[in-house]
Amino acid sequence: MQLLHLPHHDGSPLYVSESAPALGQTVTVRVRVPVAADVTAVHVRVVANGEPVFHPAAVDPERTGSTVSGYGAGDTWWQVEVTAENPVTSYRFYLERATGAPLWLTAAGVVDHDVPDRTDFRLVSYAPPPDWMADAVVYEVFPERFARSTAAGPLDPATLPDWAIPCDWDTDPVIYQGPPTPLQFFGGDLDGIVEHLDHIQALGANTIYLRPVFPARSNHRYNATSFDLVDPLLGGDEALRRLADAVHARGMRLIGDITTNHCGDDHEWFQAAQADPDAPERAMFYFDADGGYEAWYGVPSLPKLNWTSPLVHDRVGAVMRRWLDVYDGWRVDVANMTGRFGAQEDTREIAAGLRREVVARTPEAMLIAEHTHDSTGDLDADGWQGTMNHAGFTRPVWTWLRADGLDLPDFIGVPGGVPRRDGDSVVTTMRAFAAQVSWRSLVHSWQLLDSYDVPRFRTVVGSRERHLVGLGLQMTLPGTPMVCGGAEWGLTGRNGEHARTPMPWQRPEDRDDVLFKSYQDLIRLRTTEPALRDGGLRWLHVGADAIVFVRETAAQSLLVAAVRSTTGPIELPLDAPLAGLHDAADLSAVDGTVTLPGDGPALRVWRIGGPAGTGRAAG
Amino acid sequence: MQLLHLPHHDGSPLYVSESAPALGQTVTVRVRVPVAADVTAVHVRVVANGEPVFHPAAVDPERTGSTVSGYGAGDTWWQVEVTAENPVTSYRFYLERATGAPLWLTAAGVVDHDVPDRTDFRLVSYAPPPDWMADAVVYEVFPERFARSTAAGPLDPATLPDWAIPCDWDTDPVIYQGPPTPLQFFGGDLDGIVEHLDHIQALGANTIYLRPVFPARSNHRYNATSFDLVDPLLGGDEALRRLADAVHARGMRLIGDITTNHCGDDHEWFQAAQADPDAPERAMFYFDADGGYEAWYGVPSLPKLNWTSPLVHDRVGAVMRRWLDVYDGWRVDVANMTGRFGAQEDTREIAAGLRREVVARTPEAMLIAEHTHDSTGDLDADGWQGTMNHAGFTRPVWTWLRADGLDLPDFIGVPGGVPRRDGDSVVTTMRAFAAQVSWRSLVHSWQLLDSYDVPRFRTVVGSRERHLVGLGLQMTLPGTPMVCGGAEWGLTGRNGEHARTPMPWQRPEDRDDVLFKSYQDLIRLRTTEPALRDGGLRWLHVGADAIVFVRETAAQSLLVAAVRSTTGPIELPLDAPLAGLHDAADLSAVDGTVTLPGDGPALRVWRIGGPAGTGRAAG
Repeated sequence: MQLLHLPHHDGSPLYVSESAPALGQTVTVRVRVPVAADVTAVHVRVVANGEPVFHPAAVDPERTGSTVSGYGAGDTWWQVEVTAENPVTSYRFYLERATGAPLWLTAAGVVDHDVPDRTDFRLVSYAPPPDWMADAVVYEVFPERFARSTAAGPLDPATLPDWAIPCDWDTDPVIYQGPPTPLQFFGGDLDGIVEHLDHIQALGANTIYLRPVFPARSNHRYNATSFDLVDPLLGGDEALRRLADAVHARGMRLIGDITTNHCGDDHEWFQAAQADPDAPERAMFYFDADGGYEAWYGVPSLPKLNWTSPLVHDRVGAVMRRWLDVYDGWRVDVANMTGRFGAQEDTREIAAGLRREVVARTPEAMLIAEHTHDSTGDLDADGWQGTMNHAGFTRPVWTWLRADGLDLPDFIGVPGGVPRRDGDSVVTTMRAFAAQVSWRSLVHSWQLLDSYDVPRFRTVVGSRERHLVGLGLQMTLPGTPMVCGGAEWGLTGRNGEHARTPMPWQRPEDRDDVLFKSYQDLIRLRTTEPALRDGGLRWLHVGADAIVFVRETAAQSLLVAAVRSTTGPIELPLDAPLAGLHDAADLSAVDGTVTLPGDGPALRVWRIGGPAGTGRAAG
Repeated sequence: MQLLHLPHHDGSPLYVSESAPALGQTVTVRVRVPVAADVTAVHVRVVANGEPVFHPAAVDPERTGSTVSGYGAGDTWWQVEVTAENPVTSYRFYLERATGAPLWLTAAGVVDHDVPDRTDFRLVSYAPPPDWMADAVVYEVFPERFARSTAAGPLDPATLPDWAIPCDWDTDPVIYQGPPTPLQFFGGDLDGIVEHLDHIQALGANTIYLRPVFPARSNHRYNATSFDLVDPLLGGDEALRRLADAVHARGMRLIGDITTNHCGDDHEWFQAAQADPDAPERAMFYFDADGGYEAWYGVPSLPKLNWTSPLVHDRVGAVMRRWLDVYDGWRVDVANMTGRFGAQEDTREIAAGLRREVVARTPEAMLIAEHTHDSTGDLDADGWQGTMNHAGFTRPVWTWLRADGLDLPDFIGVPGGVPRRDGDSVVTTMRAFAAQVSWRSLVHSWQLLDSYDVPRFRTVVGSRERHLVGLGLQMTLPGTPMVCGGAEWGLTGRNGEHARTPMPWQRPEDRDDVLFKSYQDLIRLRTTEPALRDGGLRWLHVGADAIVFVRETAAQSLLVAAVRSTTGPIELPLDAPLAGLHDAADLSAVDGTVTLPGDGPALRVWRIGGPAGTGRAAG
């Protein structure tokens, strides 16, 4: 399906003059309209103070007729002013045509029928995320499985707490659920991470997301016993300080992991609450008359925090502020359930309160929420700056690239395994979720191929070649890439526990160094090409086995073609040459058509607008 | 496009065991799965406390293999329990298939890709609307243009206030905007309505929605000078009492019209506020330092109420309670803007507060909100029980049935006139809006073909025949029909003002009595057939010129075929005879197929499952 004839707008700087308007500020929004769209008039519809109002757009004389972003010299550009009347001001375009019914252009695309407001474009006047976030490449580390420091010496079972089952670094993790699963102890520590920062930096990541480091009676540490210190098994507070200093000395950043929905039943807050019904901590949880209490999914070791209690606000807020002397921000675990219980529905307000507290302490702090399903209702609400985008990125990529014969039992919480879906389904899903948040929430969300909570992407796709296609999408689509430590070596894993297999520093034969090189190349491409970080996204072609899109700024555009498996050549009505940038040869336009190779699996990137080098210079 | 092979669920009693579950109550939900859908397993996904959880469904042994609702003996029925964990609990179905990727079934229909939660089905545990609402047929009356009472005698210009321009009942209204538009005065009064209740009751309506009756310096009265009395020009408080008594004596109901977003600049509240910066009323509006103030669309005669002021809550709440000694509920003008201004976004909370106050006074009260665009974000929030469904009903019907050559300048606020769209676009739009609210919000919303604020439907469609198709959709689709007084005679009007042409009691030649008879017939059909009021809705066939659907209860199903213009015969894979109920002959199934006539314009209704009469007896 060819899409290049469709009118286009997105929230990127090429189309919106100010990405973070103040309340009441007026910005210019633009629509690019190809000749083939046959559009005769453009109106913007703005919903201001709850009421839709239409304003006519005018042709932009500067852009129209000139080559903007390296292609589309024949396109008409329309422009119109929109005022950010509300913290979230929604707008869409109404396009009258010479023949046929008028079209709506919303963030979900172009349609010829009326659609609800939920997919309108959005101007967001809440305080924007810090500038550095859009340039982040995040690397996820599971502290207990990443590396054991040289100084710590071999693991001495005698030094371990009673719950821990000591394991050699080469032991297989217990990958199916059972009592030992959270108890296996491999002995990774924070100084071990310091010793391998060269690896992370060589990869090209600039931000480390550290899974929980608070003391807990488990290896995953989501059942913290305290938020006031770092687990001595990981090296204690001083080790975290050393790690933070080493990370910051390299110009990198460090993100912590906090659970706002629950704590461990060994946590000091819960212990105080359980010991004494009159303790102030009692109100921090949902106790019933018999001393029973609400817990995450009914798991008694994870009592749910009651955010109607001011003490929860005070204490969690204090924890999140206090650790910003080492962290540059937080990833919030189970953000989706925080403050939701029965008739209580305070998630958005809680998130907004936490964000205000966090940025009051550290204006540049990052705040990312975990959602494994639809996060869109919780974003653009002055709280979480982004989400871990499982719904709009991870799942659709998995369904497109999954191995034949894959027999994983579920699909990130969905029963029945990973479905196989074609490119049109994948792009439809990505667009559906992206359309329900602002551009800035999309760009600042984490795009992940996998994490320590799900099967490894390499296992899902079954081959290096398909892994590279997914990696290419991760590094070239809008959003902040998050690489789960070990993915760069093609580690495998059939579920989240299996994904926590210790890093094979000692087994070079288990590492895919060709893949590692591609990670380096694509991260470098993303880092050096502004269009891959804040450029717009325009889908050009969608087929069962091939997906083609452009990332564009006013200065330059990159064209990305992802091919799942070999398909026919892809013809695009593009009157510009392409300069190969990644795994791609230069291509010329012939009679207004560029023909992309259809062989795959492959992920190819070109610069639009000239032979290699010249396009770059133009940017 | 044939849809009868698709799995189906909706929020109606046939599919959900309890439409108004208490918080924490468990209900049974069911999915009907035709053999052709090739489904091997069904799961429900419930989002409880913010987290999606899957539960497997089981085959319902009672319904499967038997003829439920008159057809589909081969269908498999799946059932599963869902608990209303939250005030709004969303759920959807995941259908595994023998071949092909699994499907999602949401309120937007069946899809083979992931979609955001916004179209999930919803269990709503907020207090339900009163029982009588689903049976209401609403008739809208513009008091000043409906009828002048005999006792009032001829209009005497000397008795009119200075602003009024006296007009004979036969005068044309000024239909294009200009200073005289709101000043023409025809002299209709409340006792005039009493004198014509026979007409309204003969039509079949049982609920009168009365446009504003508070005193104002205009004929539309949205710029009220007081909410404490009825305009003496309409007969004063006593006349409203007489009207209410007469209406109630007939077993009918009377709905008032209140503006919560603004009042008139002559209103006593605003007068007090403007006269004295220290008056308590000052806080009820948005005054700036220079005495300027915020107004609806900047129209100075309509100052916007500031709901951050407790006094606004107190006074508006008191008004809405006080008049419930005559009214059975309220239609709320400009509900969409109420409490929305800049960073303020309190509409849902205001609506919930007003609903609680209103039902505390009158438990059976109706509360309907005006939205001319997307209302879905304001429903299912414990406030408005429904909306005036312009977006999900009026506009799509207009685009389907509009006359060739229609040259109206706008489309209920959308520039460029009424587009012409085909049946698939119409049904897609209806489904898109319906999918974003609960079944009960859909059923309790007002479905209108037109009102005194927009062009007359007859003008839009240009003929009695097409008017009848629209009327048929209004009376057979889910939702509460609202008939704008005069529509039943086929009155014309090019805009809202023109639609306010006085009722032609004195000019029989201006009345389409054939149409009136069809209004009677279709309203009676709706009143006598439970399936048309609380039956489910299943779309069976959608073509450019024909739309076919079924309304179904456990006892019986009605099949409705709307044909815009003559098309080919419509074949449905339905193994049951059809008994003609409205403008339709009995039909038999031949080899498992029923063939509906394709000639039109026409609106035909059959009962599924037997010759005329027998199906009814089965219900």
